[in-house]
Amino acid sequence: MDYETFIYFAEIVGIAVFAVTGALAAQGKRLDILGVVVLAIVTSLGGGTIRDITLDAHPIGWIVDTSYLWTAIVSAVGAFILCRYVAYPRRALLVLDAMGLALFAILGAQKAMAMGQSDVVVVMMAMITGTAGGMIRDILTREIPLILHRGGEIYATCAIAGAIFFVSFEGLIEDRLLAMISMGLIFATRMAAVFADLRLPEFI
Amino acid sequence: MDYETFIYFAEIVGIAVFAVTGALAAQGKRLDILGVVVLAIVTSLGGGTIRDITLDAHPIGWIVDTSYLWTAIVSAVGAFILCRYVAYPRRALLVLDAMGLALFAILGAQKAMAMGQSDVVVVMMAMITGTAGGMIRDILTREIPLILHRGGEIYATCAIAGAIFFVSFEGLIEDRLLAMISMGLIFATRMAAVFADLRLPEFI
Amino acid sequence: MDYETFIYFAEIVGIAVFAVTGALAAQGKRLDILGVVVLAIVTSLGGGTIRDITLDAHPIGWIVDTSYLWTAIVSAVGAFILCRYVAYPRRALLVLDAMGLALFAILGAQKAMAMGQSDVVVVMMAMITGTAGGMIRDILTREIPLILHRGGEIYATCAIAGAIFFVSFEGLIEDRLLAMISMGLIFATRMAAVFADLRLPEFI
Repeated sequence: MDYETFIYFAEIVGIAVFAVTGALAAQGKRLDILGVVVLAIVTSLGGGTIRDITLDAHPIGWIVDTSYLWTAIVSAVGAFILCRYVAYPRRALLVLDAMGLALFAILGAQKAMAMGQSDVVVVMMAMITGTAGGMIRDILTREIPLILHRGGEIYATCAIAGAIFFVSFEGLIEDRLLAMISMGLIFATRMAAVFADLRLPEFI
Repeated sequence: MDYETFIYFAEIVGIAVFAVTGALAAQGKRLDILGVVVLAIVTSLGGGTIRDITLDAHPIGWIVDTSYLWTAIVSAVGAFILCRYVAYPRRALLVLDAMGLALFAILGAQKAMAMGQSDVVVVMMAMITGTAGGMIRDILTREIPLILHRGGEIYATCAIAGAIFFVSFEGLIEDRLLAMISMGLIFATRMAAVFADLRLPEFI
Repeated sequence: MDYETFIYFAEIVGIAVFAVTGALAAQGKRLDILGVVVLAIVTSLGGGTIRDITLDAHPIGWIVDTSYLWTAIVSAVGAFILCRYVAYPRRALLVLDAMGLALFAILGAQKAMAMGQSDVVVVMMAMITGTAGGMIRDILTREIPLILHRGGEIYATCAIAGAIFFVSFEGLIEDRLLAMISMGLIFATRMAAVFADLRLPEFI
């Protein structure tokens, strides 16, 4: 598998995973199936869309290659149907969400770096790609955005730490390996935050 | 009336109608006249702006032709003044909103199709153009967005159904006639949803 | 100091000032330091980013020149640290916010005018640049956006009045002087609104 195929595969998995978290966030909000699909699309494609618009990287991925859109739609409908038969999988949801965060943050950093952006912009784009979709989802469902506050657990911090690692070792480690290590780092710190209660100091 | 004039006329009517719904949404929120005008502009121009930015279709309509902006401003001020003398027209508001949804959804589909986008993107753009402005309005006034939830009535579904019809019969029916039939379809299904309580199954 | 240096300096001051207001808005919301930095960045760079995307004025300032981003980050961290030792400076915050509004509104108007936009678009861009960042900040922290409603005080109205003045006297007064008078006008009307309770009629 070459690097392009790896990136493409990671994107599809990230979209599916985030679409499912978007659909699950609809639970208890009395949305119909279309509201659920809309939430899933916004969650899974929102971050990358904002990144591409800000970087002027047109045309945007999902407009050219509709398999991204279909992945989000099919995943949301699948989650909508499955959730009528399975109990609310809170633990699985947190794991999926951490996977999506890891995949999208490094994909965002990788895209900004390929465009020759400076390091601090690469890190910003990693954060935007990883968290903006979920932020819009939380605004639409009237939750306080996860990125800002989830009982004090770190969230965007994981994406930023992974992106700084990615930027620092670029050129020193082989591209695909570096991407996978950075993704693993984000996933591991987020899991530690959720299950071992890792925190940053709070603003009084 | 040729097709371009028809489109232009439909846009102006859609903007006026949505601007009035934006202004009416301000009732009871203690906004001053400028807050009302801002809400009206966001509601009436927000959907098309997001569509054009996503499609990279610059320059955006209202930047080149300021008659769009003036239509929104004048309609909002008119609604602001009238509403001090007339009782809150809830029924008329729902009818106007359905008209705006129908006009904007098909105008959005028509624009994406003219740019040669694929069918699923055309349908997405119909939904964005028809519903995004109202979504931002609802977020700003702290309502749960209409698109996601209004007592379970279908809303975006109407726009999507009309856009799928528009895409399916493109080239088979004369352009202007097809646009009018599709708009009528959206308006009729939305009216049926409001007054006959048409619903989709809810997420548990 | 030539006009370009003046503009650049005004931008840096505006970003620092708005970043501090963003960081202060986080108080009492139990955000960690990263949430505070994110809020500060959104507040200080959000308005200009939306303006540039809407005007298709790529590349966006903070992507090319990272000193904007660093100004926001350093200001937010400084405010985060200082606020643990100083009592909540509500009065200073309102003054800083009015300064940011004045600087950004006229910088936005100046940029749109340099691109040859029509007068009503110039005024719109002044309002967007001055108020959009704070609007997103308020949505993220779940306040009713300041622009729409703060006990009826005028806010965006000040930006619009200053921008109309700026547009009207363009070419009649020397550029830098005109910019400074317009900024002073916005700052003074906003201060009058806050401390002398200037209002516009409310929507019933």
